[in-house]
Amino acid sequence: MGPFQVTILGCSSATPTFDRHPTSQFLVANDRHFLIDCGEAAQIQLRKFKLKFSRINQIFISHLHGDHIFGLPGLLSTFHLSGRTNPLTLFGPPGLKEILDVTFKYSETVLRFPLHFIPIDAHEPKVIFEDKMLEVSTIPLRHRIPCTGFLFKEKQYPRSLIKERVEDLPLELLPRLKKGEDVTLDDGTVIRSIDVSRDPVSSRSYAFCSDTAYDESIIPYIKGVSVLYHEATFSSEMNKRAKETFHSTASQAATIAKMAGVGRLYIGHYSARYSDLSPLLKEAREIFPETYLSKEGESYDC
Amino acid sequence: MGPFQVTILGCSSATPTFDRHPTSQFLVANDRHFLIDCGEAAQIQLRKFKLKFSRINQIFISHLHGDHIFGLPGLLSTFHLSGRTNPLTLFGPPGLKEILDVTFKYSETVLRFPLHFIPIDAHEPKVIFEDKMLEVSTIPLRHRIPCTGFLFKEKQYPRSLIKERVEDLPLELLPRLKKGEDVTLDDGTVIRSIDVSRDPVSSRSYAFCSDTAYDESIIPYIKGVSVLYHEATFSSEMNKRAKETFHSTASQAATIAKMAGVGRLYIGHYSARYSDLSPLLKEAREIFPETYLSKEGESYDC
Repeated sequence: MGPFQVTILGCSSATPTFDRHPTSQFLVANDRHFLIDCGEAAQIQLRKFKLKFSRINQIFISHLHGDHIFGLPGLLSTFHLSGRTNPLTLFGPPGLKEILDVTFKYSETVLRFPLHFIPIDAHEPKVIFEDKMLEVSTIPLRHRIPCTGFLFKEKQYPRSLIKERVEDLPLELLPRLKKGEDVTLDDGTVIRSIDVSRDPVSSRSYAFCSDTAYDESIIPYIKGVSVLYHEATFSSEMNKRAKETFHSTASQAATIAKMAGVGRLYIGHYSARYSDLSPLLKEAREIFPETYLSKEGESYDC
Repeated sequence: MGPFQVTILGCSSATPTFDRHPTSQFLVANDRHFLIDCGEAAQIQLRKFKLKFSRINQIFISHLHGDHIFGLPGLLSTFHLSGRTNPLTLFGPPGLKEILDVTFKYSETVLRFPLHFIPIDAHEPKVIFEDKMLEVSTIPLRHRIPCTGFLFKEKQYPRSLIKERVEDLPLELLPRLKKGEDVTLDDGTVIRSIDVSRDPVSSRSYAFCSDTAYDESIIPYIKGVSVLYHEATFSSEMNKRAKETFHSTASQAATIAKMAGVGRLYIGHYSARYSDLSPLLKEAREIFPETYLSKEGESYDC
């Protein structure tokens, strides 16, 4: 199993603070390198934390509020100037293409690498990316403008064969046994997969849910994920403000995590009003003990 | 005399490095607070250096390459979110308006403060801002896309009257004497301004010239300025590359400074290839000894 690790590049909400940048996350899933959202200065953070960002081949953008996209033109320009030729796929709301087109039109920039833009329909949950190891699907969120979360889910691993129990079996039968199928030998003997192989390691998953009002309708999409990132812009005291702005409180994020039975919850997208984040952590842990604060420069395994 | 001081927010060329941000400068001229260019993360730098950026009422944008504008949507969003109501005037190439309009359209942002956009004609030098203390004019530069420098020049201070020599004169004559005019009293006596007043302190000026190829035609505009900022993307060894990309070498910046007889030269807009900038400084000082490196977070008086 390769790494399945998220690094936080920014954990602030719309107004950055001295030490908190707007939303952006770097996800390494086996040999894939993904960027999720791209707030201002994301490229500077990627450099600061010495992440291998030239390997990013897919970028996922949740919505078009500035604190989730203002770093994107700069990152693409840097790819362009550094001589990138690898194609890049950008998933995001349809308007993103127009923003980039206008921006690059006036700088007379013609990107040197192919940029494939895949528009996301924010209302329709859908698998938008798939390879042999992993699947990425959208999660419709409830925000002021169209917004989607993303679920990154490893595919089910095959069973692992127990060497000494299969060494006398014909080689061509092994793939079926790994898949969990039972096989019959020429002499009629039935070999049960369960007898010659171990259960597969469980597949890992990461759900990214920012920005969103409290919304129980996302639970089916995030049920049992290894790690859930859920925005927690405010503490419970600011419940009314959270509702007005279509954001969540830390308690609400924890309630969603509990109802969805996730492994761990990371909160983020903190309002600039909080310099001390411990009250947010405290109120979330009262509901869901496995809650952690996302912090810039820190990585967590899924 | 109030302050006339520039603070460097970013001194990198297009690709930022770990410790250098793209171009942006904060200029305090008496009680005015100006921003010149707005590269990515300018708002974060303004916070980091504890500058009073809510006082900025005028922003000057030289051209539409990303490393000079990608911080602008974020800064305007922050003004908006922090409840700014003071009008802001933005001077820049005509396309800038369209970039901002498209960006804010998709985030459904309607700025809460009046944003007055003044398009700049890059080919026609012109006074674009004036108040009782100061004048700002454009300097046509030679770059790959339309680009202007800016000259910030204090108006001529009045002569200062020598108290004991004017105390018996009619009050209504004093303003003319301060202006340098001679006056005739009712009895026919001529009072010469020069006899009753001192020379005014010399007015200060700052010329910002980035990005530009070596171009002697800018010299008449920057003649004798107190401080010249001139880009020096490359060292002389990269002369060919500088020419191709319409940038300057440190020697070329120094040659311009020498020919224009400026007070001091600050160079900047360094290519990411230079981690040690001393060779650039050395080659410039050989031509113009009063050369200095611009450095992020440092301020210099004009």
